[in-house]
Amino acid sequence: MPEVFDLEAIRSAVDESEVVDAVEQAFVAYSRGLADIPPVGLLHFDDPPGDVHIKYGVLRGDDAFVVKVASGFYENPSRGLPTSDGVMLVFEAATGRLGAVLLDEGWLTELRTGAAGAVAARHLAPPIERIGMIGAGVQGRFQLRALARVTDCRDVLVWSRSADRAAAYRDELSQEGWEISIAATPSEVAAASDLVVTATPAQEPVLFAADVRPGIHITALGSDNVGKQELDAQILGIADVVVADSVSQATHHGECAAAIAAGAIEQGQIVELGQVIADPGLGRTSPDQITVADLTGVAVQDIAVARMAYRALVG
Amino acid sequence: MPEVFDLEAIRSAVDESEVVDAVEQAFVAYSRGLADIPPVGLLHFDDPPGDVHIKYGVLRGDDAFVVKVASGFYENPSRGLPTSDGVMLVFEAATGRLGAVLLDEGWLTELRTGAAGAVAARHLAPPIERIGMIGAGVQGRFQLRALARVTDCRDVLVWSRSADRAAAYRDELSQEGWEISIAATPSEVAAASDLVVTATPAQEPVLFAADVRPGIHITALGSDNVGKQELDAQILGIADVVVADSVSQATHHGECAAAIAAGAIEQGQIVELGQVIADPGLGRTSPDQITVADLTGVAVQDIAVARMAYRALVG
Repeated sequence: MPEVFDLEAIRSAVDESEVVDAVEQAFVAYSRGLADIPPVGLLHFDDPPGDVHIKYGVLRGDDAFVVKVASGFYENPSRGLPTSDGVMLVFEAATGRLGAVLLDEGWLTELRTGAAGAVAARHLAPPIERIGMIGAGVQGRFQLRALARVTDCRDVLVWSRSADRAAAYRDELSQEGWEISIAATPSEVAAASDLVVTATPAQEPVLFAADVRPGIHITALGSDNVGKQELDAQILGIADVVVADSVSQATHHGECAAAIAAGAIEQGQIVELGQVIADPGLGRTSPDQITVADLTGVAVQDIAVARMAYRALVG
Repeated sequence: MPEVFDLEAIRSAVDESEVVDAVEQAFVAYSRGLADIPPVGLLHFDDPPGDVHIKYGVLRGDDAFVVKVASGFYENPSRGLPTSDGVMLVFEAATGRLGAVLLDEGWLTELRTGAAGAVAARHLAPPIERIGMIGAGVQGRFQLRALARVTDCRDVLVWSRSADRAAAYRDELSQEGWEISIAATPSEVAAASDLVVTATPAQEPVLFAADVRPGIHITALGSDNVGKQELDAQILGIADVVVADSVSQATHHGECAAAIAAGAIEQGQIVELGQVIADPGLGRTSPDQITVADLTGVAVQDIAVARMAYRALVG
């Protein structure tokens, strides 16, 4: 019988200090073609609006494979429920036996998405004196906690569509050693930050090319679904380096897909994050370059964190 | 928190007498376009050989959706393990919250596949005086138990590649009121039966056109994967009616795909099982016709049994 673990057990077992490196290695394996990652399974609901993603696959030669089912139902907060839910299933690769059910309620996904932002910052950002955070939600918190593993900067300028959420973000993160200021506009965030992270559910751009100055790195995380967009296509158009976690996925949705559709970039110029990690010459090569990372979320990240949790929980 | 149920709890809760009708209704809904069933997710392993299928979807307007992950690892029996394992996840359609994890170890899949065979027999077979069973494995048992819901015939002629398995099948099913004889060849089974069910892992045909006489109905169940085949393509070529549980799926694998590739049939002549149920004129219209049902397994069947189990377990 498979073992079943709840969120509390998973949080206790996972060593968060190891997640950024694990996700980084997963990106490298992915870009080297060492992972078997089928297309994402999708189920869409109109009323109430929701999306279900099934991300799954295996690292070649690994002794386990992972299937993640994650839902996002956008009206849940009005019912007092979290937007997201999820479960990760870990199977033994030699037998196909279900080894563990990780009832993580989406926590592992937040964790690996945070880690991906930190990986992008580590390999693409200039020296960071201020972090700009656009969006003050759950993922905005995971981003900072992951960034703490890759930068000493603790100075953050945050913007949220909701002043209350921005204040709550400031109050909460201030207690963890961050110095948080609140900006009036996304543009103000971009003007004053070396690294800007967008973590919103925006369906229309919140940042434009005019907001972007030389030397900035922008990581966009929110465009995990068709129809979402955080960055105006021209930002990618003027960027010196455009990176995606998965080039094949970036052509379907995310900032890259929107920029390709707008004619601002061509698919051929997108570099995969795992390639940049393995060959830094493909990333930022001077302090004045503008770099953009479009992270739509790849199953290798889920595999990495689920394997970490499984090893810690089951051995 | 979702509730987690093991096989014992699921078996106790499910009313097996209702499964055939539930699966029948699911086929009708599917063929009417009332189900949203994305393409099956697949993960293939070479060493040791195994396949993982992810089948999922929702009946329009239903208040739950289902994701099934099922594995088949063919060398497991040599390690003392069952070939198959599986889990079904039931989510609330209004919120995307995971409602239940059904750790059914593949039992619900066997049950719904058995039910599909009974549905095909109910709508396509001539009056049944003898059932022919080719294959004496787990699914051959589920087939008979489901057929008991749709026919009074208890006379069965079975063939298996393994004489031991055939004898074990006879001994076990005899205790449930079946009169089981063992045939020396598949051909002998077909010659003496009105309904023939093939439930083998064959990769090459076990039945040929010369074995098939007027009036017979054949249900082929084993070709659930690319590369499997139980019926020679010419059987479908001479059949008066060729039915598939899913026409779109039948063009990718199963007996129909093999027969199309061999030029024995054209895709346009395949009728969907749900259409035959709704309009019997599309099925057998005379006792002398040869009918074939190619059942490769569709997510609506999984949805039907998972919903039954969920209602019985959670309410």
